[in-house]
Amino acid sequence: MTTTAPAPLRIAIAGLGTVGAGVIRLLATNAALIAARAGRRIEVVAVSARDRGKDRGVDITPFAWEDDMTALARRDDVDVVVELVGGADGPALALSRAALGAGKGLVTANKAMIAHHGLELAQIAEANNAALKFEAAVAGGIPVIKGLREGTSANALTKVYGILNGTCNYILSTMERTGADFGAVLAEAQRLGFAEADPAFDIEGIDAAHKLAILASIGFGTRIDFAGVRITGITQVRAADIAQADALGFVIRLIGEADVEDTANGPRLLQRVRPCLIAKGHPLSAVDGATNAVVAEGNFSGRLLFQGAGAGDGPTASAVAADLIDIARDEVGAPFSIPVAQLAALPPAEPGARPARTYIRFMVKDRPGVLAEITAAMRDGAVSIESLIQQGRGTAEGEVMVAMVTHEGPEAAVTAALALLEGSESLVGAPLVLPILPN
Amino acid sequence: MTTTAPAPLRIAIAGLGTVGAGVIRLLATNAALIAARAGRRIEVVAVSARDRGKDRGVDITPFAWEDDMTALARRDDVDVVVELVGGADGPALALSRAALGAGKGLVTANKAMIAHHGLELAQIAEANNAALKFEAAVAGGIPVIKGLREGTSANALTKVYGILNGTCNYILSTMERTGADFGAVLAEAQRLGFAEADPAFDIEGIDAAHKLAILASIGFGTRIDFAGVRITGITQVRAADIAQADALGFVIRLIGEADVEDTANGPRLLQRVRPCLIAKGHPLSAVDGATNAVVAEGNFSGRLLFQGAGAGDGPTASAVAADLIDIARDEVGAPFSIPVAQLAALPPAEPGARPARTYIRFMVKDRPGVLAEITAAMRDGAVSIESLIQQGRGTAEGEVMVAMVTHEGPEAAVTAALALLEGSESLVGAPLVLPILPN
Repeated sequence: MTTTAPAPLRIAIAGLGTVGAGVIRLLATNAALIAARAGRRIEVVAVSARDRGKDRGVDITPFAWEDDMTALARRDDVDVVVELVGGADGPALALSRAALGAGKGLVTANKAMIAHHGLELAQIAEANNAALKFEAAVAGGIPVIKGLREGTSANALTKVYGILNGTCNYILSTMERTGADFGAVLAEAQRLGFAEADPAFDIEGIDAAHKLAILASIGFGTRIDFAGVRITGITQVRAADIAQADALGFVIRLIGEADVEDTANGPRLLQRVRPCLIAKGHPLSAVDGATNAVVAEGNFSGRLLFQGAGAGDGPTASAVAADLIDIARDEVGAPFSIPVAQLAALPPAEPGARPARTYIRFMVKDRPGVLAEITAAMRDGAVSIESLIQQGRGTAEGEVMVAMVTHEGPEAAVTAALALLEGSESLVGAPLVLPILPN
Repeated sequence: MTTTAPAPLRIAIAGLGTVGAGVIRLLATNAALIAARAGRRIEVVAVSARDRGKDRGVDITPFAWEDDMTALARRDDVDVVVELVGGADGPALALSRAALGAGKGLVTANKAMIAHHGLELAQIAEANNAALKFEAAVAGGIPVIKGLREGTSANALTKVYGILNGTCNYILSTMERTGADFGAVLAEAQRLGFAEADPAFDIEGIDAAHKLAILASIGFGTRIDFAGVRITGITQVRAADIAQADALGFVIRLIGEADVEDTANGPRLLQRVRPCLIAKGHPLSAVDGATNAVVAEGNFSGRLLFQGAGAGDGPTASAVAADLIDIARDEVGAPFSIPVAQLAALPPAEPGARPARTYIRFMVKDRPGVLAEITAAMRDGAVSIESLIQQGRGTAEGEVMVAMVTHEGPEAAVTAALALLEGSESLVGAPLVLPILPN
């Protein structure tokens, strides 16, 4: 009696930056255990990147080389293409379409591409019976796509939210620890490699919004709607806000949150990325540094938390390779949990009527009557103040900080009250409004 | 053109306690979304329990009834049997063997049965190409079996540890919050339903050990070895220990931990359940009440945390139904990630040589020379003391508490030092030794 070893899963890798090199290193280092768990070996057969000769710390000479990465999708000896090039469009998208169109599996870490073109790619995958997997696109090494797609699959989720951008979390938690201001911490983060040379995608909340749009689609069975995410970055948060929040029992973190609201006109999808105050004691309040964490609340599971490294070559390679093992095991299914044709197209929700507690910070001129002016506007806007602190000492420019926390009330009331203060000569710049995350 | 709907997955449920009723309720409440995600409907066709007439809050009249639960395994109209009877042996085991032997899938929440007979059942499952799934057996609604089996599948794990028993965690965190002693809090927990009438399995650490043995097998690719778990329960922990730990910057939690140690004689599996001191700031230190949390450290993923409700009918039903959806999707694979025949049989590790910081608490008679006697024993055992506190006020019985934290050193040194104090007339009862969890 003879048994033949099962055929290996043959992969091609496009993009050999730190993550691509990490995937090659992982597949070599853990080859034996991966073969045991996957039921067959996973072999790199071909690669493509911009510069063949660059030293990446891994030996790529055993692999076939393609100058044109799209050629990887045409190779007969490739079962799955791993796309690690990045960018929402361009070569990454062309390669992904070609690979899935040829019936090959596609594994990608590309959150921007999935947020913008994930449904189109999933349709190609479904039409060609090909696997499309993107665990590494959200929250790095944390198996949260799997967590939502399979772990909480029996639940109607009431809410998905979390810390989805490691750069912002590193900056905010470092500001908290050191008391330094945003600009200084950002510069230090760039020096240490925790922030890109062009940090806009991270600090403006775009990256977190990409991830949130993907999570919302899987969690709620809705069509991805990146354009529907309301986004506020962290650039307006001052060290003084963090100190103020701390005194009130909160930390400040950039939170992505999504839920579905039932309205008289049918269900609406709410997706927001914004800095929030989080009460100390909430599981997310202890998430420091570049760590990511996602909370999913199900109607039977209750609150689940998934936490870990949100980026880095090792964690990202771990997620990519887990997807490859799923494909090798033939455990694939619909990319967004249900077929694209069945995903609901929900209009974005209008959050104005939602009750919320809010932190409002004003920078004001140090002169009499300012507090009366602000509190009158709050009264006239029907905003009820829970606590208010005026900083004793002003800044060098003669500015004073006034910070308040409101009682729970409609968000629209805060907007209305602040509209009454528009154009006021007492205010220096626009007030900062941060929601308080419900516990 | 006509399309036929895919055949439903037909299930039978044995055991209609709170979890069984919860599964029926979940499958009805979330039927539409489950059908969309699973690709077909999941239908209960038959049930069995001790008392047919009992009011369970769910209507079981639509389902066929079997007085003999093993008959569920023989029904032609059943694809998967859900075993929610409990008990390591007896009817649950007979039913499970029969179901898998008949080629039917088996989903179970029975940690004791899996810890004792999981490998035998997995072998029957593998021989009959049947699904065996037990997400609900470990950490309730948290998808941690899936997390280890699939989420971290590309990693060699260096360590798996966590809070695996909600009853113990409820008791310890309530003692911490209220200052009440063990007995009082246990009685209150029993009154509130957080502890069984016979709490031994929980408070002696057996339940956590069942779960740990299952996690270790999947995490490390080793044969389940429940007998190899070193178990210490929480009954010796006093409110004064918790207060002392708090003063030193720690909380006390019952921790299950497993790793594989490479020794000159080959790899060894270390599995321990015991109360540990955890530094405030460690993710597990904030886990309160009946919550469970599992940390897995992978060689590429880094540290991952999975947290949520460790028990309760909703969370447990959520895990059971997720297993059913996996089966309906035909995403099954080897129950222990790799086939049973390939699991390594590792002897238990000898932890004595491991370096650790340790908390040691003595109850001593309030008389001169006691401290000198204890510190001399530590010196002679080569245990280096980091901090020591003698409580000013003794108990009503004239006992005084002496608590110390050691510098890092081999655990065997502490054992040796304490052996020198055996039989001492200064000591009241045996000292309590709690390890400090490394950060």
